Amino acid sequence: MSRTSRNGAQRRVRQFKNRPARPGDPRVRPKGRLLIIGGHEDRNDGKVILRELANLVGSGKLVVATVASEKPDSMWDEYEDAMRAVGVRHLHHLQVESRTDAESVRAMRVLEGANGVFFTGGDQLRLTTMIGDTPVFSRCHEIFANGGVIAGTSAGAAVMSETMIVSGNGDASPRIGELLQLAPGFGFAKDMLIDQHFAERGRLGRLMGVVAQNPRILGVGIDENTAIEVEPSRRFRVFGKGGVTVLDGSNVTYTNVVAEATDRALSVFGVRLHLLTQGDEFNLEDRSPTDGSAEEVDEELSVGPAKVKRAR
Amino acid sequence: MSRTSRNGAQRRVRQFKNRPARPGDPRVRPKGRLLIIGGHEDRNDGKVILRELANLVGSGKLVVATVASEKPDSMWDEYEDAMRAVGVRHLHHLQVESRTDAESVRAMRVLEGANGVFFTGGDQLRLTTMIGDTPVFSRCHEIFANGGVIAGTSAGAAVMSETMIVSGNGDASPRIGELLQLAPGFGFAKDMLIDQHFAERGRLGRLMGVVAQNPRILGVGIDENTAIEVEPSRRFRVFGKGGVTVLDGSNVTYTNVVAEATDRALSVFGVRLHLLTQGDEFNLEDRSPTDGSAEEVDEELSVGPAKVKRAR
Repeated sequence: MSRTSRNGAQRRVRQFKNRPARPGDPRVRPKGRLLIIGGHEDRNDGKVILRELANLVGSGKLVVATVASEKPDSMWDEYEDAMRAVGVRHLHHLQVESRTDAESVRAMRVLEGANGVFFTGGDQLRLTTMIGDTPVFSRCHEIFANGGVIAGTSAGAAVMSETMIVSGNGDASPRIGELLQLAPGFGFAKDMLIDQHFAERGRLGRLMGVVAQNPRILGVGIDENTAIEVEPSRRFRVFGKGGVTVLDGSNVTYTNVVAEATDRALSVFGVRLHLLTQGDEFNLEDRSPTDGSAEEVDEELSVGPAKVKRAR
Repeated sequence: MSRTSRNGAQRRVRQFKNRPARPGDPRVRPKGRLLIIGGHEDRNDGKVILRELANLVGSGKLVVATVASEKPDSMWDEYEDAMRAVGVRHLHHLQVESRTDAESVRAMRVLEGANGVFFTGGDQLRLTTMIGDTPVFSRCHEIFANGGVIAGTSAGAAVMSETMIVSGNGDASPRIGELLQLAPGFGFAKDMLIDQHFAERGRLGRLMGVVAQNPRILGVGIDENTAIEVEPSRRFRVFGKGGVTVLDGSNVTYTNVVAEATDRALSVFGVRLHLLTQGDEFNLEDRSPTDGSAEEVDEELSVGPAKVKRAR
């Protein structure tokens, strides 16, 4: 590493320590994209979702952040192979085990020049407790603001929301008060809440619980090996093999979420539900879906190593 | 057993063999109720759902039909205790192991004078293959038509629909063509399809699959230890601890269920979803929910042995 780069990184750490970049800043209108993956994306066969990530990164630098994971090394090994296979050439590993790591010059140098960051799975609270409001987070926000891509799978997907689900029963009748634990997320994905492993873990109930609490929040449940790509134009498009369940509470006519005892099961009347699959798009402004062709996306992405289409 | 009763039962067998009673008969407008339970109803503590069943049967005769089960004797033992505990006095066991059993004088005598039949869990195809169009089924239809109650849990719930789900993946992204196996059910619950163990087995996807196929069918997903009571007025009310998920496809704007390859995941836009809990009601005519009080239902049902309120 050159001395210039080290000095530059030191300056960035100081700058971000003094003035953390936060997604609530009204002066910043992010030009980047989010690629939010419901977990277990295909890393061996068609790799549709990772190919799309490679497309977004183009000839740029992609950083794989294993912060959420307790086994960062093996996770890095796995993604290194998969990302190289889809044609990502400038690939780096960001390992953060403490908040000190997250304000280190080393971390800042890993992120230097990156136009893509990918957050692996693990525990979403590890992500926010370790990097929340640190220079690493500020730098990620800057990448996003400047037009880069922030991607995440599983815990790395959940964390994208303003408010995120930390834990809550799947495969059970939702209860009003108990079991659903929320925490503040990264705040990149506005006015929505992401739930991941959605169909696989029967998570309709817990997502309904959040939408009932505040219909401002659009519930977005992403199945495994499925992703949404959120564009700056406030639309998203679906990639991958499974479905994306959208719960729109705009027209909810009744819920018992306030009135009843917390061990009661949840009532919610009048939720609008859309099930989207690859190629379908969703407009976040007016909350309307548009159908698209799954085959076209496959054709676009599956020919040889990823084509560089949207390189920035 | 008296000879008269034997002769009467023989007459009924012959009568029903000649003219089976079928739910499509336009001259019959059933005056009875359905109590449709999502499985694993409480048999030990509050027993809210079984108490409601006892209320409906009143001082009449309840027949527990273990047809669906491969262990009819142990199932009968369990329900005998539970039903007696909620105050059902005239309680009988209908055991049917073949279609011959289902057209026997013995079976007809068990059902004689009954104003309630409860179908236990097991396999819904056992139910329809063994009693479909037999005198036992005709007699059940007659009981329902004359104002009695037909109850069922798990497989005994699934079988109530016109078209029933035999099998289909839960906890998975729904696919268009594969894995969802349907068969004709009893046909007591019109224009709807019941799915059971709904939250517990993550069955949103498979129920969406059916609603997408034909929005005439209202999707009704019933959680465990939860029931709907369908009244002749085409309303239902919810009992028990969990939720009832209603999927109304009336305003669906798009689905790919026809257009795409069968291994594609399912797209459906614009489903109206209601999550109902104890005390809530649903009008099947205009597909509108009304909220109710869970506590009132508890109070109504939980004081001592079941009160005889709606005895017929």
